[in-house]
Amino acid sequence: MRNKPWAIDYLESNDQFVDVNNNYSKKIKEFFSKDQPLHIEVGTGMGNFITTLAENNPDINYVGIEIDKNVMIRVTEKVVDLGLENVRLVLLDANKLMDYFNENEVDKVYLNFSDPWPKNRHAKRRLTHSNFLSSYKQLLKENSIVEFKTDNRGLFEFSLISMNTYGMKFENLNLDVHDDEPETNIRTEYEEKFSQRGHKIYWIQASF
Amino acid sequence: MRNKPWAIDYLESNDQFVDVNNNYSKKIKEFFSKDQPLHIEVGTGMGNFITTLAENNPDINYVGIEIDKNVMIRVTEKVVDLGLENVRLVLLDANKLMDYFNENEVDKVYLNFSDPWPKNRHAKRRLTHSNFLSSYKQLLKENSIVEFKTDNRGLFEFSLISMNTYGMKFENLNLDVHDDEPETNIRTEYEEKFSQRGHKIYWIQASF
Repeated sequence: MRNKPWAIDYLESNDQFVDVNNNYSKKIKEFFSKDQPLHIEVGTGMGNFITTLAENNPDINYVGIEIDKNVMIRVTEKVVDLGLENVRLVLLDANKLMDYFNENEVDKVYLNFSDPWPKNRHAKRRLTHSNFLSSYKQLLKENSIVEFKTDNRGLFEFSLISMNTYGMKFENLNLDVHDDEPETNIRTEYEEKFSQRGHKIYWIQASF
Repeated sequence: MRNKPWAIDYLESNDQFVDVNNNYSKKIKEFFSKDQPLHIEVGTGMGNFITTLAENNPDINYVGIEIDKNVMIRVTEKVVDLGLENVRLVLLDANKLMDYFNENEVDKVYLNFSDPWPKNRHAKRRLTHSNFLSSYKQLLKENSIVEFKTDNRGLFEFSLISMNTYGMKFENLNLDVHDDEPETNIRTEYEEKFSQRGHKIYWIQASF
């Protein structure tokens, strides 16, 4: 995505929707108009997933986390346009999750089409590496779910082994989501594009 | 496979290779000329997998288990033709494994293209159902591996969840074995045929 020099200005001008300066760190509930269950998506991309989910589930609060300010403009525009009171966005590196949220505060974590970091020496950057699983476990309430979707076979293989080794319990999985696609599946922008190119879409729900 | 009325006669006439009447139940070592590690394949099918493996690994004893006497003729013919001293065959229902082997006697279990039993009410017949995993755990030595390969997506999804729920540790897995096929992969007759039809081949090594 092209760099937009005005990105931060734009995001700051919408600070009722986006937290750029970590103003709501450790006090995320104040960021929402209603106190209700909290689901987060780590890496929102363009935001079709989280905004669709939020429209369908007004009784859940959603936090979208994204590190790329240029991408964050897109999802902010969607949230502003739809006037979604139950979506808030945070410009944050996933490594900083535990600086931002309190323990046992979150009810569900979504990961969609995360960067595969295919080189072994970058394995720690994958969002299903044990270090990240450890963060999710801390911020999630007990027995809560991590839901992960990708078209990247290598990343999915790594993730199954990582989650299993960590002791997570596999609740559901699907090795070809678009074959007999469940009605509940929400396609991300990326998913739409790469499914058309013949990529299989892999999906798992696992709990701690 | 067509029923062969002469099947049992043929198998009994090769009783140095095939145990039809459970003569070697609980004393499997007497069935082999050398005392060496014991690997078993539950459901040999036509036998290309176990005979190729046995040719490549003369220092391992292999037991092929198959319930279908007509299929067993094929694998027996292969073992006889190749004069394999390290393969022995047992005509046995997989449900009877624990009647046949002693505890902690086996070093590895192979499952290849097992019957998927797609109906939920038949889930207990799948060779990766927890009841079977429990048998494998008993007959295997500690930390030993179960290696499972299939082209059936539903069965593989079920198996990943079943093995994870049972507490097995995923050591390796591959969601498309024939894409950059490992040199160590031995194709079964079934695998050859269904890969040509475009089926993906799934594979996992998991330990107790």
